[in-house]
Amino acid sequence: MTPNYSPLLTDLYQLTMAYGYWRLNMHEQESVFHLIFRHNPFDGNYALSCGLENIVEFLKQWRFQEDDLAYLATLKNSYNESLFSEDFLNYLRTLIFTCDVDAIPEGTVVFPHEPLLRIQGPILQCQLLESPLLNFLNFQTLVATKASRVCRAAKGGEVIEFGMRRAQGPDGALSASRAAYIGGCVATSNALAGKLYDIPVRGTHAHSWVTAFATEQEAFTAYASVMPHNCVLLVDTYNTLTGIANAIETGKKLRNEGADLLGIRLDSGDMSELSIKARKMLDEAGFEKTIILASNSLDEYVIAKLKQEGSAINSWGVGTNLATSYDQPALDGVYKLSALQNKKGEWEYKLKLSEQTIKNSNPGRHQVRRFFCDDQYVMDVIYDLSLGISDVAEAAMLDNAQHIKKLDNVDGFVDLLQPIFRRGEYVQEKKSIHQLRDSAIAESNYFYRTHGTSVYPVGLEKKLFELKQQLITELRATTE
Amino acid sequence: MTPNYSPLLTDLYQLTMAYGYWRLNMHEQESVFHLIFRHNPFDGNYALSCGLENIVEFLKQWRFQEDDLAYLATLKNSYNESLFSEDFLNYLRTLIFTCDVDAIPEGTVVFPHEPLLRIQGPILQCQLLESPLLNFLNFQTLVATKASRVCRAAKGGEVIEFGMRRAQGPDGALSASRAAYIGGCVATSNALAGKLYDIPVRGTHAHSWVTAFATEQEAFTAYASVMPHNCVLLVDTYNTLTGIANAIETGKKLRNEGADLLGIRLDSGDMSELSIKARKMLDEAGFEKTIILASNSLDEYVIAKLKQEGSAINSWGVGTNLATSYDQPALDGVYKLSALQNKKGEWEYKLKLSEQTIKNSNPGRHQVRRFFCDDQYVMDVIYDLSLGISDVAEAAMLDNAQHIKKLDNVDGFVDLLQPIFRRGEYVQEKKSIHQLRDSAIAESNYFYRTHGTSVYPVGLEKKLFELKQQLITELRATTE
Repeated sequence: MTPNYSPLLTDLYQLTMAYGYWRLNMHEQESVFHLIFRHNPFDGNYALSCGLENIVEFLKQWRFQEDDLAYLATLKNSYNESLFSEDFLNYLRTLIFTCDVDAIPEGTVVFPHEPLLRIQGPILQCQLLESPLLNFLNFQTLVATKASRVCRAAKGGEVIEFGMRRAQGPDGALSASRAAYIGGCVATSNALAGKLYDIPVRGTHAHSWVTAFATEQEAFTAYASVMPHNCVLLVDTYNTLTGIANAIETGKKLRNEGADLLGIRLDSGDMSELSIKARKMLDEAGFEKTIILASNSLDEYVIAKLKQEGSAINSWGVGTNLATSYDQPALDGVYKLSALQNKKGEWEYKLKLSEQTIKNSNPGRHQVRRFFCDDQYVMDVIYDLSLGISDVAEAAMLDNAQHIKKLDNVDGFVDLLQPIFRRGEYVQEKKSIHQLRDSAIAESNYFYRTHGTSVYPVGLEKKLFELKQQLITELRATTE
Repeated sequence: MTPNYSPLLTDLYQLTMAYGYWRLNMHEQESVFHLIFRHNPFDGNYALSCGLENIVEFLKQWRFQEDDLAYLATLKNSYNESLFSEDFLNYLRTLIFTCDVDAIPEGTVVFPHEPLLRIQGPILQCQLLESPLLNFLNFQTLVATKASRVCRAAKGGEVIEFGMRRAQGPDGALSASRAAYIGGCVATSNALAGKLYDIPVRGTHAHSWVTAFATEQEAFTAYASVMPHNCVLLVDTYNTLTGIANAIETGKKLRNEGADLLGIRLDSGDMSELSIKARKMLDEAGFEKTIILASNSLDEYVIAKLKQEGSAINSWGVGTNLATSYDQPALDGVYKLSALQNKKGEWEYKLKLSEQTIKNSNPGRHQVRRFFCDDQYVMDVIYDLSLGISDVAEAAMLDNAQHIKKLDNVDGFVDLLQPIFRRGEYVQEKKSIHQLRDSAIAESNYFYRTHGTSVYPVGLEKKLFELKQQLITELRATTE
């Protein structure tokens, strides 16, 4: 499904660090890294996890090939010597993926600082995987979240992803189509995404179809003749109102032949006013069921405004703003080493300090427990696998560590991270993209219905929080 | 070089239009489409064309495969009938690329409304290619332009592209690395981009290297021992000033072994202040040649500010803001039918109207002539191949059509669009990515030196302009 990207799809520094670990004979040291993001995108209050399946495909075929090694052999250091030794390249030749991966399933509502993915295994492997894991999860989580917001704004109206032409490269387009579908879109215009990912595809016609004929009426009639059962006409090539009238004429001809005018598409002008006029014209001509599809720089804000203005649009083609996540084109995901096994087989907990408290990384090996009560999620708690979590969970809130929240009245919980790989073997039961989409829509609707736009509480389990504070104090003492 | 994307890398509506043209026996009708963008990105006054080579690779292997056709056979219309007939799929099976393509070479300074690419050939083929051509050129032109701006802000300081981890999918990262290099970066961190595109690769180490050791000093010593001739140390894992001191200690050890401290990397905090302190500490310890590399949310604005503040940074690692073109993540490129041959073999000129004058497309078959005089470009004129252009060029300015500019004093000109394919055969002499980069840097420096931030004049050749006005008048008369 994912093109056969080599393990070279990583940053060079992962390879130089891998070489360093190998030279120092640390490369097999068991390590734990977590992948988290730090802020909800789009100033929202949730995100939808997405991108895991591409990671699975990538990891399943993660193996250095001869041409990769030949390339690495050409790299030089600043003294023009080989950057990597031949022995190291021979080691990479034999390297296979042997890590454990746990991850939050795609289409889950997630929050800042929760590990979307935890990887445990030889530090050399975990390090090499940092860049591709971030690349896949950052972008698809971003677009799935954007799609969820856009679909929410459309209030049940269909949203179709139309973004390929301005997406960031072919795969930017393909992975955006996938994530947008999981986030709630009903279809994509991208035929290859349809084929690769089993996403429904939709489309109308372009202005060029109309300009290829002598008149718009002729163009519509021609299109209707070849697509009688799939006829959505783009009406703004010359003048939208004339276009709507021409479309209605075409609709009448279609009806004479036992077909119908499926829809019209507006692509410019005052969409609110034009859609209301179009609806009136269509209804008066007896085309009450003909849908009005809108496209042209739409996003959740424009759609919300058009809904509020009483526009008569049924269906939304959302392109650039969705596929590039225009108002925030990157998620701020990071990947941090949080535990390393020493020679005695004990876990040593690791963290990176920062001047900003919130950027101090969290040590340990994490799971996320989501508690619910009275048919509502009440709190997520990030806990450490060794330290555990008590039945009466206590956690320091991430947005205000002074606030220790205690949960003594819950109906139950789920642990969000699930096993994906064990010792390099894929152990998850694969879900279809349609199942992922169904759960994403159900989850985000449920979350939105129960929490609206409020900030959802996420905490560090109390013992983990205390350990972190202790480690910070120790580190500061030795480094300042 | 480009993954083997199928012709299904297009929007579905291109396929339904193709089907329509085929059903109506119009599919072989000779047509001309142009690919233009409408606004200079980033509120700048130029763009750098980029992405053509990926298009060449895509077109060279553009052929429907059996699995593509099998997929298309599964698609249904709204009546649950096959969307495409079997005959049409058989036609696609035999379809080969037979168009002429002319394009502005990569790394050329370009302006709004100039065709970056002109394609002439059977309308069915030209139509199918709209989406991928836009996808490749839009994104890479955007990133090459961004890179050019970032490098200009760095005023000769090295800029390295570091964006993979937050780029828009694997190929978003790869094509960004390529375009960033052409736009002026000296290297990328993306090892696969290095391999695929022959781009120099660079890297340091991550915070995780430091946290993997008991102390920072131990981590630095270990890194220096394995990379003595490539030693750039990241100094902010715990505390930047302590980190710099530790790096200097490591540098002294390196010198004892006949090596040296190549650089340090700052990744957080007040970069201006920290770099000045770092320079002082390094110089006082005798490390005058050790470079100071900065990373952390850099872009042309941040770099310009740091330069202005007198920061001592020599080298810039620019990630997300470059690879996703964060402040404008999409170029507004469009692709419009502008001429169609009728059955008599005559060209009929086509345009799309818009309420906004500037969005009326330009009819004809275009070339762009760039005039120079007194060692300066003076004007670009878009002219029609049939109408031609006189020795004393007259053109209506695109930003103000009332202004007809006449060029009677020029030293010469170049026609920017060059033949790339003829009847489907690749006819261009391929340049290396390094040559493309050299010309991009030379061109943009020249343009900037001679024109600064002024708006560069681009006009429609007078006869073409008049023809366009006439066509608009005629079209408005029949469509309103």
